[in-house]
Amino acid sequence: MKKTFCPGFKAAGIASGLKKNGRKDLGLILSEVPACVAGVFTQNKIKAAPVLLDIERIKQGACQAIIVNSGNANCCTGKQGMRDAKNMAGHAAAALGISEDHVLVASTGVIGEQLPLSKIKKATPRLVKTLAPRGFYDLAKAIMTTDTVPKTVSAQGNIEGKIFTITGIAKGSGMICPDMATMLCFICTDIKASPDFLYNALYNATERSFNRITIDGDMSTNDSVIIMANGVSEAVVQDSTQNSLFQKALDKVMISLAKKIIKDGEGATKMVEIAVKGALTNNDAHKVAMTIANSNLVKTAFFGEDANWGRILGAAGRANALFDPDRVDLFFDDVLMVKDSTGCGKRAETKATKVLKQPEFTVTIDLQAGMGCSSVLTCDFSIDYVKINADYRS
Amino acid sequence: MKKTFCPGFKAAGIASGLKKNGRKDLGLILSEVPACVAGVFTQNKIKAAPVLLDIERIKQGACQAIIVNSGNANCCTGKQGMRDAKNMAGHAAAALGISEDHVLVASTGVIGEQLPLSKIKKATPRLVKTLAPRGFYDLAKAIMTTDTVPKTVSAQGNIEGKIFTITGIAKGSGMICPDMATMLCFICTDIKASPDFLYNALYNATERSFNRITIDGDMSTNDSVIIMANGVSEAVVQDSTQNSLFQKALDKVMISLAKKIIKDGEGATKMVEIAVKGALTNNDAHKVAMTIANSNLVKTAFFGEDANWGRILGAAGRANALFDPDRVDLFFDDVLMVKDSTGCGKRAETKATKVLKQPEFTVTIDLQAGMGCSSVLTCDFSIDYVKINADYRS
Repeated sequence: MKKTFCPGFKAAGIASGLKKNGRKDLGLILSEVPACVAGVFTQNKIKAAPVLLDIERIKQGACQAIIVNSGNANCCTGKQGMRDAKNMAGHAAAALGISEDHVLVASTGVIGEQLPLSKIKKATPRLVKTLAPRGFYDLAKAIMTTDTVPKTVSAQGNIEGKIFTITGIAKGSGMICPDMATMLCFICTDIKASPDFLYNALYNATERSFNRITIDGDMSTNDSVIIMANGVSEAVVQDSTQNSLFQKALDKVMISLAKKIIKDGEGATKMVEIAVKGALTNNDAHKVAMTIANSNLVKTAFFGEDANWGRILGAAGRANALFDPDRVDLFFDDVLMVKDSTGCGKRAETKATKVLKQPEFTVTIDLQAGMGCSSVLTCDFSIDYVKINADYRS
Repeated sequence: MKKTFCPGFKAAGIASGLKKNGRKDLGLILSEVPACVAGVFTQNKIKAAPVLLDIERIKQGACQAIIVNSGNANCCTGKQGMRDAKNMAGHAAAALGISEDHVLVASTGVIGEQLPLSKIKKATPRLVKTLAPRGFYDLAKAIMTTDTVPKTVSAQGNIEGKIFTITGIAKGSGMICPDMATMLCFICTDIKASPDFLYNALYNATERSFNRITIDGDMSTNDSVIIMANGVSEAVVQDSTQNSLFQKALDKVMISLAKKIIKDGEGATKMVEIAVKGALTNNDAHKVAMTIANSNLVKTAFFGEDANWGRILGAAGRANALFDPDRVDLFFDDVLMVKDSTGCGKRAETKATKVLKQPEFTVTIDLQAGMGCSSVLTCDFSIDYVKINADYRS
């Protein structure tokens, strides 16, 4: 993992004193040359200052660096917060000797406290000095909050004999719910591509990855997924075949990062896929899947390794989807547990209980109403989730 | 509390062996004369057999008895489940010597297991023998699942010199979320009133009580609120003044029961009112209040007695309401903690932390966008919630 890299990019992560425990909390990504850029951001009405800044700056279509801190979200910090976000970019730009407009900013951590900018200012020259092609692992560490492991993924592809690389770094463990640009994720790639192409590819990959996971149904104020393409590989995306080659590689990186986030969900001990099929529409299937995936009663039953399928049907029933309540089938992996909304008995339950003891399994719900389907990833809900979130600020 | 009664009604609660621990699990309410009846039921698409039966029977506008069990929800039990619900009513009718059509049925407990009807059949004659005017407390005990205390409330009123009584019994601790007829609640009253009048009064009171509380955002398959009016008091509701006198008393009883449910929320240690004002519409205010009230991150912070207002604003921001994200004020009781979406500093936080240490407090959010307001009750989210729900069936 420490070997993660992407040609033409450097990264760094150091401790600046924002976190009380002396852990890394300040990170930087630099592209050797100005890169094309695109991003998707939280749909929350309350947006952090760096998100508002990035949404503006990304319109230029080009950037060269991203500076990011953990330990403080710089959100609900008023005009001072926006000044701090701009100054954070300014200090990085000065130390790097590049245009301030080409620096994006991201923050994650506690909401509502002013950013201790002097610490960041003081640490930035040291941050720049530690920039290295193999610095992504340090960066991934520097953006962790309640995460227990750093999350990096690399993939390579080939367009007409020219190798390209995609490297992704993400953080996220709580306040994770889709229908937004989820948590922090930075993607570096060395292909040549336009900002429009990048945005479409990023949007598609987000729909297939981060918008299909949920840990606690809470939507963050700081979620940002940013992709930078510096073109140093000379692999160019020009037609639809090349397009789909790149999309496939990007999907792979982002789905892999999304799974890492679920597995590292606050207090999580299991990753569970909720697959809904036979819905009238895909939209109905997605509503049912998300309602089940966010149900505390379902998630605590997963934690208890209890094949309590009644809670799953109860959640499906309140999802506002059209189906016959007497015709629902349910599987734990390949064990048919419920046929036409009625339990299949003790033998099925014994088999299902074995499935639930695994660290990963799939719950399939067949609504027998049509061809719509959807699949989302969730985790179980443990005592540790409550401990982590009752104690987070103390 | 053991003195709860309502003229012309008897009640009973005994142990029939449905619960493994020998606790009371079978209850009965009898009106001496056929009573007018109305009910509101769960909006969940998956409805338990007794709910489906009651929805049909209640159309007659009259009933004389309700038989209810805990320990088994008789839900997702197919055609056998409906036969069992009808037979449960049939056994009660036979033992009471009344028409089977005049018996309603309610069940609460685990979903997806067939009802052990033979146990109920065997216990019913004994249940009928123990019927007593002061039997409501036993009944309240017999309908408990994860509840830790029985819930009964009585109130009296006066219409033109004629005293009337309203007695309510409720159960509910988990799987509690509004926009439905919440959990089990039986209301007995001795006024004279038509089924239509009763339905309107019940609907209004439900909107003001059970539809304003949330414990875990999960909607049950068995929720039923049923009111019976036997007319033995000779207090008659005939005009709008009398109407509002009765409505006020009914509201009082049902709001009091709703508060008892929140205080007895699974694992709950605090009751918190979320009051939203200054919204563009009442609907916007309600969406914001419910999103905050159901946020796991907000509720775990309450448990941790952490004045983490950023999570509250974060939840408000994803509620799909129209407001200026830079103009939100927030109070813990009367402590102004956030002004124009920015924290009021350490002194406010110290005061707010004291508020959070109380067993009951109010969070007021002013969106400064209009005149809409809404208020809901929620509880904190503790380690015990997870313990209770991971272990519930074992």
